[in-house]
Amino acid sequence: MSAARAWAEQRLGHAFADPQLLELALTHRSAAARNNERLEFLGDAVLGAVIARAVFERRPDAGEGVLSRIRSRLVRGETLAEVATELGLGSLVRLGSGEARTGGHQRASILANALEALFGAVWLDGGTPAAERVILALFATRLSALPGEDELTDPKTRLQEWLQGQGLAPPAYTVTTVVGAPHAQTFEVVCTVEALDLTIGGHGTSRRLAEQDAAARALARLRGEPA
Amino acid sequence: MSAARAWAEQRLGHAFADPQLLELALTHRSAAARNNERLEFLGDAVLGAVIARAVFERRPDAGEGVLSRIRSRLVRGETLAEVATELGLGSLVRLGSGEARTGGHQRASILANALEALFGAVWLDGGTPAAERVILALFATRLSALPGEDELTDPKTRLQEWLQGQGLAPPAYTVTTVVGAPHAQTFEVVCTVEALDLTIGGHGTSRRLAEQDAAARALARLRGEPA
Repeated sequence: MSAARAWAEQRLGHAFADPQLLELALTHRSAAARNNERLEFLGDAVLGAVIARAVFERRPDAGEGVLSRIRSRLVRGETLAEVATELGLGSLVRLGSGEARTGGHQRASILANALEALFGAVWLDGGTPAAERVILALFATRLSALPGEDELTDPKTRLQEWLQGQGLAPPAYTVTTVVGAPHAQTFEVVCTVEALDLTIGGHGTSRRLAEQDAAARALARLRGEPA
Repeated sequence: MSAARAWAEQRLGHAFADPQLLELALTHRSAAARNNERLEFLGDAVLGAVIARAVFERRPDAGEGVLSRIRSRLVRGETLAEVATELGLGSLVRLGSGEARTGGHQRASILANALEALFGAVWLDGGTPAAERVILALFATRLSALPGEDELTDPKTRLQEWLQGQGLAPPAYTVTTVVGAPHAQTFEVVCTVEALDLTIGGHGTSRRLAEQDAAARALARLRGEPA
């Protein structure tokens, strides 16, 4: 049995009846014309449905807007890349030589898309019950600790709303440093609230995440919480 | 048996084990605090998945982008409102008195949302096989005549690209008349291609649709096709 098949059985809990589907799901478009993009389309759809229902059932009192935001958080690229990394998916993805050389095996978008393609492949291979089983198992931890309504609004929005409530101007964000190779950069950001003479730093693997981190720290400081 | 249950059996082909789910799916937010919005969230998700797979299977050679555009066209509000109208869903939706008085029973967004809510209710009531059966039956005609790649680009975009190809300026659109009550308006639009001295009319139930209609007629004229 190939390394990929053993991995799928062990980590996804699905033994592929048609191993070619598994191979296809693991083939990035940089590696071949016949690649995982169609399966990704399919996987995205089944993932959306399975997670929608799981969130619906776990949040009987939440309105449509909250359900929708919780689901977005679970199925967005960032979360999928985390799940893919936990599964050790990176080393199994087939890449073209250019992508492989520039760190494609760790690239978040490649990992997220390959994971979606795997869901699509499982759906075709084992039907809806198999897809539901695999997806629910991989998201079990995240589904058992769904974000509260407060967490659903991102820190930047909450900080801005908090300042607005005090009649103050919105904060400014400045990138101070970017370090690392293109596929593994770290951004350092400073958030400044001029009226309060507050300057606080944050960091993350993207500019957006670094700004959110800085905003979250600024909020905590303003509310007198421990940083 | 209630009118709604008889309708669901006959037109959706699903006999609800839990008729309360059916009632909830037919309750617009103007009628009650417990309404169909959560079910709409669920139905949108299962509809997206079922149609994604149906399109995937019917278009084995289409890339992800084309699959995605075909699906969007099938699941967008406009199409859902058409399907709902074909089913005679309007008269069954429970509305608040204000909505009912101002033509809510024919309003496209209310019909589209109620149809999605029905898919969600069927999914909960009869499981994934029931939801698949109902959705595939209601979309059978549309799935057997999927749009070609050419049709996927809207007429306004195609007209603009055609003119660009001739080195000409983009067309201008002007609304000339709006008739009818707010929920049942007809828009008349004129599309003008100055450089070609072409003026051609179109109409539709929204400004967007009227402009697309005019653009389609202009394209046909420019290509020498029968109008």
